[in-house]
Amino acid sequence: MQKKINIKDVAARAGVHPSTVSRVLNPATHSMVSQAVGERILKIAEEMGYARSPMASGLRTGRSYTIGVMIPDLLNPVFPPIVRGIERTLAEDGYIAILADSDNNTKSERAILDSMKARHVDGLILATAHRKDSVVDSCIEDDIPVVLVNRTTDSHEVTAVINDDALGIRLAVDHLLALGHRSIAFMGGPQNTSTGRERYVAFRNLWKKGHFRSDSTLILNGKSYNEQAGKAGMQKILRSQLEFTAVVTANDLLALGCYDALGECHLSCPRDISITGFNDMPFMDRLSSPLTTLRIPHDEIGVRAARLLLSRILHSDKTVTTVSLEPELIVRGSTASPAKA
Amino acid sequence: MQKKINIKDVAARAGVHPSTVSRVLNPATHSMVSQAVGERILKIAEEMGYARSPMASGLRTGRSYTIGVMIPDLLNPVFPPIVRGIERTLAEDGYIAILADSDNNTKSERAILDSMKARHVDGLILATAHRKDSVVDSCIEDDIPVVLVNRTTDSHEVTAVINDDALGIRLAVDHLLALGHRSIAFMGGPQNTSTGRERYVAFRNLWKKGHFRSDSTLILNGKSYNEQAGKAGMQKILRSQLEFTAVVTANDLLALGCYDALGECHLSCPRDISITGFNDMPFMDRLSSPLTTLRIPHDEIGVRAARLLLSRILHSDKTVTTVSLEPELIVRGSTASPAKA
Repeated sequence: MQKKINIKDVAARAGVHPSTVSRVLNPATHSMVSQAVGERILKIAEEMGYARSPMASGLRTGRSYTIGVMIPDLLNPVFPPIVRGIERTLAEDGYIAILADSDNNTKSERAILDSMKARHVDGLILATAHRKDSVVDSCIEDDIPVVLVNRTTDSHEVTAVINDDALGIRLAVDHLLALGHRSIAFMGGPQNTSTGRERYVAFRNLWKKGHFRSDSTLILNGKSYNEQAGKAGMQKILRSQLEFTAVVTANDLLALGCYDALGECHLSCPRDISITGFNDMPFMDRLSSPLTTLRIPHDEIGVRAARLLLSRILHSDKTVTTVSLEPELIVRGSTASPAKA
Repeated sequence: MQKKINIKDVAARAGVHPSTVSRVLNPATHSMVSQAVGERILKIAEEMGYARSPMASGLRTGRSYTIGVMIPDLLNPVFPPIVRGIERTLAEDGYIAILADSDNNTKSERAILDSMKARHVDGLILATAHRKDSVVDSCIEDDIPVVLVNRTTDSHEVTAVINDDALGIRLAVDHLLALGHRSIAFMGGPQNTSTGRERYVAFRNLWKKGHFRSDSTLILNGKSYNEQAGKAGMQKILRSQLEFTAVVTANDLLALGCYDALGECHLSCPRDISITGFNDMPFMDRLSSPLTTLRIPHDEIGVRAARLLLSRILHSDKTVTTVSLEPELIVRGSTASPAKA
């Protein structure tokens, strides 16, 4: 490998002080140096192989080497490991990620999009997609490179890296059937997201096959993917007085909310009710009732999304594709055979 | 409250189509409208009270209404609730936060700073400060408004919202003493951070007072604030064969690592060893051994930091201050009286 060219090398060749090179390469101070000197230094830097520096080439190409990443809920620990995969992959090509948290708020999503556009990001990775999504539409309209992660839109007009949600729900249900459960409830997520919709539809389809009993009162969808929605849903299910021995949830935070509702009724998991989650977010193995859940490949989701976006940006690859990754069932202590089996 | 003025109202008054107003207010499309029309619409928007729109006024003032927030480790769940406090407070003044994760890497911190400067953030909130910190120095040099959260620098040259680390350690030790512990180990954090240094010094000072036994072999500082460092440190402490009945840790993730090391040796918490954490990050109440820890006021840290930064930006308030907030001891299941007390 060649010695990495640094600012001092460029300064020596250009016959200027290193601080002058530094000023030229820094967008914030670039204007402090005369245009002629600036251009000469950039040319030398490029010839010497220093041109791969994002800032140096960004000044000439108009690239910002910055990717905007929008996530719907910073408090949901499933996103950090996905973002880490994105960051690591972007860094390999000299890009950095700036993140924004929309707090599941459509108005915030639009404000963030505007701000990121104004900050000249080279592309966007959105974990915020709704089945109909005006932010995604706006990116398509403005021809901003965008890749969706975890969720996609109904129109499938942009590249997305998602999970095989139907497979995940089938793995959870099959696991519960194998344990002997025959009456299963479902605590789902927001129906305006692809994950909420797909997981709900998958559960209903399995129910219709007749391998277990359920009831429309036992099949609920929360308005959000959080503990409050899971708790409220579980309370409603419990109030129905209908018999069930297990709950499939569409998300780990919903599952934690179900734990809370059970605890309030002095019911215990898995002794009274088995619970499955979805995502395998960090720390789920450390809970007092370690959660049986579907592990989505967090790192791979991030890596694949970043690679697809970079391919679009660097090689103008305009292919639109949906990458669907397989979740894996992780069996832990929150599921067991039903007491009265 | 007055009716909120929207784009249609401005368009009606200006006698143009709403899409024209929209184009003027959007930095990405602003140039599509003639300068005369653009200025007239901005003036009407301002007169009607639409001027508080960040984008509308940003175009005239040069403000980006964007604050950069740099965090050292996205995988540490203590940061999201702090960031939420920041976001909510910024939003009240029409600002949004863009986040970046430095992964505890000084080179990344510099790259992020460069990118955020190039993106023209109006100010920075840094959770990444080291006791000597070239990124902070660079912000001072460039006169970029900056507020530190959670950690500060030795020089105290910029405003910081931190926790009373010494008080926290004293609360943890007093709690263990009250339970009857007389031999206490310490698993600390990186000594190049103020939190790592202050918590370590506080523990040593309490030890020197003679209320409990410890040993320099039982007092370790990890290189990072993560589970791996906590596990490695605890393994080393256990190999010393010295007697101790409790461990004070400088951070919840270190405490989780201690759990792992104990588990491998078939030791149980709190039966064999009591453990205290620091931060009370989300989910610590849900662990199989719910963690006794110091709750830092996550939301308040974020709110105070954002307010101090906005005060600097909006009112040119150049006061440099260190706000020290009091942590609260949250007693849970990871601490108990020593078995042989």
